[in-house]
Amino acid sequence: MIVVMKRGFQRAELEDVIALIEEKGARPMISHAEHSTLVGVIDKTPGEKHGVSPDALSSLPGVEKIVPIEEPYKLVGRPLHPEDTVICIEPENGVRFQAGGGYFGVIAGPCAVESEEQIVETARAVRLAGGTALRGGAFKPRTSPYSFQGLKEEGLKMLAAARRETGLAVVTEVLCVNQVDLTAEYADVLQIGSRNMQNYPLLEAVGRQSNPVLLKRGLCSTLSEFLLAAEYIAYQGNPNIILCERGVRTFEDDTRFTLSLSSIPILQKKSHLPVIVDPSHSTGCDYLIAPMSRAAMAAGADGLMIEAHPHPSQSRVDAEQAIDCGAFAALMDDLRRLAPAAGKRWSE
Amino acid sequence: MIVVMKRGFQRAELEDVIALIEEKGARPMISHAEHSTLVGVIDKTPGEKHGVSPDALSSLPGVEKIVPIEEPYKLVGRPLHPEDTVICIEPENGVRFQAGGGYFGVIAGPCAVESEEQIVETARAVRLAGGTALRGGAFKPRTSPYSFQGLKEEGLKMLAAARRETGLAVVTEVLCVNQVDLTAEYADVLQIGSRNMQNYPLLEAVGRQSNPVLLKRGLCSTLSEFLLAAEYIAYQGNPNIILCERGVRTFEDDTRFTLSLSSIPILQKKSHLPVIVDPSHSTGCDYLIAPMSRAAMAAGADGLMIEAHPHPSQSRVDAEQAIDCGAFAALMDDLRRLAPAAGKRWSE
Amino acid sequence: MIVVMKRGFQRAELEDVIALIEEKGARPMISHAEHSTLVGVIDKTPGEKHGVSPDALSSLPGVEKIVPIEEPYKLVGRPLHPEDTVICIEPENGVRFQAGGGYFGVIAGPCAVESEEQIVETARAVRLAGGTALRGGAFKPRTSPYSFQGLKEEGLKMLAAARRETGLAVVTEVLCVNQVDLTAEYADVLQIGSRNMQNYPLLEAVGRQSNPVLLKRGLCSTLSEFLLAAEYIAYQGNPNIILCERGVRTFEDDTRFTLSLSSIPILQKKSHLPVIVDPSHSTGCDYLIAPMSRAAMAAGADGLMIEAHPHPSQSRVDAEQAIDCGAFAALMDDLRRLAPAAGKRWSE
Amino acid sequence: MIVVMKRGFQRAELEDVIALIEEKGARPMISHAEHSTLVGVIDKTPGEKHGVSPDALSSLPGVEKIVPIEEPYKLVGRPLHPEDTVICIEPENGVRFQAGGGYFGVIAGPCAVESEEQIVETARAVRLAGGTALRGGAFKPRTSPYSFQGLKEEGLKMLAAARRETGLAVVTEVLCVNQVDLTAEYADVLQIGSRNMQNYPLLEAVGRQSNPVLLKRGLCSTLSEFLLAAEYIAYQGNPNIILCERGVRTFEDDTRFTLSLSSIPILQKKSHLPVIVDPSHSTGCDYLIAPMSRAAMAAGADGLMIEAHPHPSQSRVDAEQAIDCGAFAALMDDLRRLAPAAGKRWSE
Repeated sequence: MIVVMKRGFQRAELEDVIALIEEKGARPMISHAEHSTLVGVIDKTPGEKHGVSPDALSSLPGVEKIVPIEEPYKLVGRPLHPEDTVICIEPENGVRFQAGGGYFGVIAGPCAVESEEQIVETARAVRLAGGTALRGGAFKPRTSPYSFQGLKEEGLKMLAAARRETGLAVVTEVLCVNQVDLTAEYADVLQIGSRNMQNYPLLEAVGRQSNPVLLKRGLCSTLSEFLLAAEYIAYQGNPNIILCERGVRTFEDDTRFTLSLSSIPILQKKSHLPVIVDPSHSTGCDYLIAPMSRAAMAAGADGLMIEAHPHPSQSRVDAEQAIDCGAFAALMDDLRRLAPAAGKRWSE
Repeated sequence: MIVVMKRGFQRAELEDVIALIEEKGARPMISHAEHSTLVGVIDKTPGEKHGVSPDALSSLPGVEKIVPIEEPYKLVGRPLHPEDTVICIEPENGVRFQAGGGYFGVIAGPCAVESEEQIVETARAVRLAGGTALRGGAFKPRTSPYSFQGLKEEGLKMLAAARRETGLAVVTEVLCVNQVDLTAEYADVLQIGSRNMQNYPLLEAVGRQSNPVLLKRGLCSTLSEFLLAAEYIAYQGNPNIILCERGVRTFEDDTRFTLSLSSIPILQKKSHLPVIVDPSHSTGCDYLIAPMSRAAMAAGADGLMIEAHPHPSQSRVDAEQAIDCGAFAALMDDLRRLAPAAGKRWSE
Repeated sequence: MIVVMKRGFQRAELEDVIALIEEKGARPMISHAEHSTLVGVIDKTPGEKHGVSPDALSSLPGVEKIVPIEEPYKLVGRPLHPEDTVICIEPENGVRFQAGGGYFGVIAGPCAVESEEQIVETARAVRLAGGTALRGGAFKPRTSPYSFQGLKEEGLKMLAAARRETGLAVVTEVLCVNQVDLTAEYADVLQIGSRNMQNYPLLEAVGRQSNPVLLKRGLCSTLSEFLLAAEYIAYQGNPNIILCERGVRTFEDDTRFTLSLSSIPILQKKSHLPVIVDPSHSTGCDYLIAPMSRAAMAAGADGLMIEAHPHPSQSRVDAEQAIDCGAFAALMDDLRRLAPAAGKRWSE
Repeated sequence: MIVVMKRGFQRAELEDVIALIEEKGARPMISHAEHSTLVGVIDKTPGEKHGVSPDALSSLPGVEKIVPIEEPYKLVGRPLHPEDTVICIEPENGVRFQAGGGYFGVIAGPCAVESEEQIVETARAVRLAGGTALRGGAFKPRTSPYSFQGLKEEGLKMLAAARRETGLAVVTEVLCVNQVDLTAEYADVLQIGSRNMQNYPLLEAVGRQSNPVLLKRGLCSTLSEFLLAAEYIAYQGNPNIILCERGVRTFEDDTRFTLSLSSIPILQKKSHLPVIVDPSHSTGCDYLIAPMSRAAMAAGADGLMIEAHPHPSQSRVDAEQAIDCGAFAALMDDLRRLAPAAGKRWSE
């Protein structure tokens, strides 16, 4: 439930509210919206409902009303946090990445880091074209144990080199609790891939560190399950989460997955978190990346994550779905033209 | 297979090509593209491959080359008809509807015709807001035999009255071979609904008359099946077909269906037919209609089919997914602003 | 709603109940169960709720109580008809086909009738192996207009010849309202295929004639939609309906469709109609037919519809999913062994 | 590729084959089938194809022929290991659990361990009814962070107590690499749940220890992806893997998931690993457990995993899908009657 404080409430009144919540074994979460201050009453122990009584709270001075939270996710939902979360990353002397609250951020780069040369060349092209962050996998989750599994820590070092070179923030995936600390040293944003959307120990681990997290939708997850996965991260203390729609598995056979763009306005209605779209993995087809990127922006997305590679046909992973740097630059031009009509500001 | 004629071929040479094709028991289909004339060699009898030899054809004078058609659909595919089909309807003294070739047509109206007053009021609002055709069901396919099944011929007369009043072309559904002639008297475009996408006798019946056909994708059909359904219509002689993406059935539970917008560029790559989108039936949610309409345009759609109702809450059918006339007008404004950046001309 | 009559009610009391129902514009449907007589109150006019008041009915003499029907289907649901419907066909001097109420009926034969020789040879093998009805398509719904569309009336005559020869009841598909009367002259059971499960005019047409109807589940239909399609048939007066599970479309790529065997007990719980399974079209793989047939029986199915062909590799349609007559006979032996443990009696 | 040794080959010849494989940087995997000895040539380093030449191998003495492996999984596929793997667990003085090779093993118990009393009571009922292993979750993956997450190590101790009491082998889930060693101390079989089917570090961790692994199919995974997940485990050295079909996510809304029983014969054709079925999580409905269990056995499954709880309605997790101990015993009787006709031996 949410405690809505009266306008002009006294600091001591808020403290009393918090004290009551804590006393009854719940966690208070304070949220400041434009015209109101809200206090969420959150269960502290999984499986045990807190004992805070709405009547006791509503009779406290300074409290305007008590509002129930109907959805199973509390921290990532709009009711407790009506305003958009804006994820903003400013690497030193670098390119500012922003997503949410009207800002449109573009993360681009290869599926996998293959060499320092490849990642630095791509990063330069991404920056030149107006991209605002660099992606590249160092730990790669692969369907087969015989496939290339990424360059691991060497790959992280190459990403860091590309960041030094271009000022672009670095987004990279973690597969395992044990990789979180190491990766957080090198990268700005930790990505949780689709296969790990319900890997709860991993969600908790990225929730206990402070870098923003990019959480990809599971390939068969409902939006409620997706938001509950984000809730796992937020529940551990990290509110900086970017949701990424990347297509769901259906019977359709012309694309790798079915990109479900209606998830953008639905997620934005239910949650304050920014929502970006990955048109590359979802479609698996280079020629669909541009129209699906435009469609995502027009539907209100807060950004994109695009696979771009200097030489797609030589890519070690997912060659058929990456676009080359020229196509990426053309798409960026396209999106900049579309942005005003779509009500979006370019991230930087 | 396709016979590509040489530039500057002689008329008699083309006639020889046609004669050879007919002699061997196949159907020649002539297609004039910007810089070339093509002759498709089409099987005449279902289940029997024609006996036309590519070698015999390629040795004829005036023939440049023979190109195989790899897809199972021939007439609706791009190879035989490289240029966009533009569906253009010009009711006398009325509003020109165009879809395809850069034109963006908007069909709007209620799910079901309920009264002359309702349909005329809606038609006026649609016209005022810039819509270019009117939709409304007179024969309604309903999941339950106990649900309202439409006003039938009375409904058709009301649609015709709305057309007289506003000049808008009328789009309405047929459910059965026996309704085709009657409906074609009153309506400009015959709609085949999702449930009937593979009702082959019905496809053949609308293929044997001359009104344009709006073919909705089956709720679980692949794009190849969708184009083969269109091929049934074209094979009977009617080339004026509008394809309509309306969502597919998946596990997603926030929307009625999953709107698959990547089908737009895929269908446009494979086929010359215009592709429009129905954001109303696909999502089943009024608040998703605007963002999905914008996304469809940005993805390259040739038009939209939108449920608008003067008083959605009083609608006898699908109340929750219609928008009112004010919301429709606001959406039209939005789309007009977006059109230049999306490379679309307004239909009229 | 359902009127439950008291034990030992008077005939005149039942007549009063019926009179009241009819007077208020509804249709009474009488159903005799083992220990009770039930009268369903059914809407007469689609889209208009009847005006029968439960209070008025419950105050009539002879009435024990009024029970609401919660599901949208009324006539095919268990509440109004608690006992199993048994479909029983006895061709003159022929093989009795039974499905429902513990009887297990096996329909087998080729996908399409190709020649009299082929269908008679198959029918003999089916009969010899213990099959109780013959299937074969004369009107074939095909995804492509260029595929073989069946032998039409000639095919129906061949099926009739096979029936004369073997005494097996004949099951064949109708695609169109206009084929219903002709087909009913030749065949014992009219099949509605998956693509036509929601072709309402066709459902109404087979509902207005008296041959049993085999209704296949739409490839993406929910069980509620499936039962409502059966309700369309029953609403027109034909209560003899066999439901056929034939797989649903999913992302699975090892089989043509995903055979969903849990539909058997669910449909049997909700409806009194017999439920059979088509392991051939659902899997599309010959080696899966035997295990899926056994599984269907063990799950409680009332029968099977199997594709068998004397020479599968020469079949004009669906060659890869038919089994030959030897494999069919072996499967029948297998099923006869399994029947007692599965609580099923062989149909004949 | 697979090296097939000649009958009566010399030990030294086999050693030469192995030496050549190792010399060229690949891993030899020896497999003894009834009439032949096979040596698989397996890539050693992910992403790098080994350099072993088939010609070099086939020219060695004692080698009959070289057979390619066409599927992406090598170790879990039938070609390299034609005979069924039988998983056999014999707790000291306990109940022998067997699955595969004609044996049918039944694992039953509550979703979550709730108390020592609950788990011991259930274990006794499972043993009495003829079940051959006990399941119970100590670490529970839950969609919401606010749900009960299991009793963790305390739960493991309770499972061990139930094993001491009844002699039943214990199956329990691990969620994280860090839980593997601890859990392996207490449990006989480590379960990988659906959500973790592609958690590759976890698969590798259970592959590096020696307890059998029960791998549940991901809720949206293809069978190829499922077998590749098993390959991850086998590739680390643990060949004792039980595959568990537990339903896939589709549009069906009467059940929690769609149980796809055709996966049983398909997996058994492609792989030598035993395949069991979970009718509880897949359907989510108590009344479907018995018919789906019978169907699974009739389709050839090697066992079942069933949720049974002494008092389902008081269960803290998944109450609606568990059956009570009486229903479980009745089902066991049913299955024992069915087993001979289904060609299965009871596990013990």
